[in-house]
Amino acid sequence: MTAVDFAAFVDELASVSGDAILPFFRTAMGIENKQAGRGFDPVTAADRAGEAAMRTLIKKTFSEHGIVGEEYGNEREDAEYVWTLDPIDGTKSFISGMPIWGTLIGLSHRSRPVFGMMHQPFTRERFSGDGAAARYSGPAGDRALHVRPCDAIEDAVLLTTSPLLMSANDRVAFARVEAQVKLSRYGGDCYAYCMLAAGHVDLVIETGLKPHDIVALIPIVTGAGGVITTWDDQPAHNGGRIVAAGDKRVHAAALRILTDSK
Amino acid sequence: MTAVDFAAFVDELASVSGDAILPFFRTAMGIENKQAGRGFDPVTAADRAGEAAMRTLIKKTFSEHGIVGEEYGNEREDAEYVWTLDPIDGTKSFISGMPIWGTLIGLSHRSRPVFGMMHQPFTRERFSGDGAAARYSGPAGDRALHVRPCDAIEDAVLLTTSPLLMSANDRVAFARVEAQVKLSRYGGDCYAYCMLAAGHVDLVIETGLKPHDIVALIPIVTGAGGVITTWDDQPAHNGGRIVAAGDKRVHAAALRILTDSK
Repeated sequence: MTAVDFAAFVDELASVSGDAILPFFRTAMGIENKQAGRGFDPVTAADRAGEAAMRTLIKKTFSEHGIVGEEYGNEREDAEYVWTLDPIDGTKSFISGMPIWGTLIGLSHRSRPVFGMMHQPFTRERFSGDGAAARYSGPAGDRALHVRPCDAIEDAVLLTTSPLLMSANDRVAFARVEAQVKLSRYGGDCYAYCMLAAGHVDLVIETGLKPHDIVALIPIVTGAGGVITTWDDQPAHNGGRIVAAGDKRVHAAALRILTDSK
Repeated sequence: MTAVDFAAFVDELASVSGDAILPFFRTAMGIENKQAGRGFDPVTAADRAGEAAMRTLIKKTFSEHGIVGEEYGNEREDAEYVWTLDPIDGTKSFISGMPIWGTLIGLSHRSRPVFGMMHQPFTRERFSGDGAAARYSGPAGDRALHVRPCDAIEDAVLLTTSPLLMSANDRVAFARVEAQVKLSRYGGDCYAYCMLAAGHVDLVIETGLKPHDIVALIPIVTGAGGVITTWDDQPAHNGGRIVAAGDKRVHAAALRILTDSK
């Protein structure tokens, strides 16, 4: 069974999680009630509902698979196939009503990410990839995703969720890159990597990521022809400090600037 | 003729501008061609196409009205009714492929904003208001917009497009507010004010706004029950440093903190 066989199943996972999460987005159910009973946190409730729906379907279909999830912990982490789930990546966007959060569904085979999807249920957009190819489906139609070429870091558009999420040292390194690019923009979470895969931006730099923040995005970025590693040029699937680029020349230039300790 | 009569016409303006702009968003036409012929800037092309479409329709329908636009300058600024147009508010989002830019269409009567719309053509969302009421129409259905109550600034969710857009002094004042709120998030432009009108966030603070960045948003925010002024508690329609809040207690608290020069 190759990774490609999982594509239809991942579509199904995206649908059940979207159905579980959407009732909490921008609705009365999603408004935090500060008066009556503190402790109801709509984003946590939505996160749990989405992850529970996906876990149920995975267990029913592939009982031997492992699951790593943000809300309900890890099961059979050493299985041949392991699912890495993040029902709501971009909780600040979710809380603020901005439709640029996403549900991340990653599948690893012997620890190597082999299939990933980012699903935005409000805009009905799905970005998926298997490391060899990547696809988009949404209101703008269905199409293959391809990164765009970018000769030089001076021409690059850079995204990051927020420099405030970085340590002081990392922020200094990030600022060196930011000073060289054509344009930088904050906010985005998983959406940023998908815009890179779609050829709209050239560079995404972040720190402090967990595996569930990044595993699903790796096969999308590489499937679209991009490069994604840690700042130390190691595989990205354990998270940490991440740099993704559409063009390997920009990736190399960003690594040089980030790790330049002078 | 009251402002309410303009609602259907503004819907038509939103449709023609959306049709003109969308072909440039996330498409080959929208990808900057760095090799062949420098100088093609897709966001400028989209901006111009959107504004031209709106100007044509306004002139055909209300030849006596004035128009203030970002791309094609001002005409009859001293007319009784003046339209203030910003075809793409949030150009960095547009360039990056993130669907949180919007088309702003404002109508003023003797300099007072009386009707406004924010249209996001990709997500098909329309936020509109006339100062007395505000409405949403989009994939989540049609409904009235209402701000949410927020007792104290410590409970507030704060949005701003980017502190880097602020002067050093203003950034210090902004940081004082940021230190007190529950959560702050960057990125958003016009979308931020609409999320405030929809009751998802409590506070938006920005600086350096032009009239075309804010005129259309004023009747939406006030129509939903919110407050929007300059940092000096003056009317917001000339732009500058703006603070918008869903709850007047949070607005007052933010003004105090922003203008506290100690």
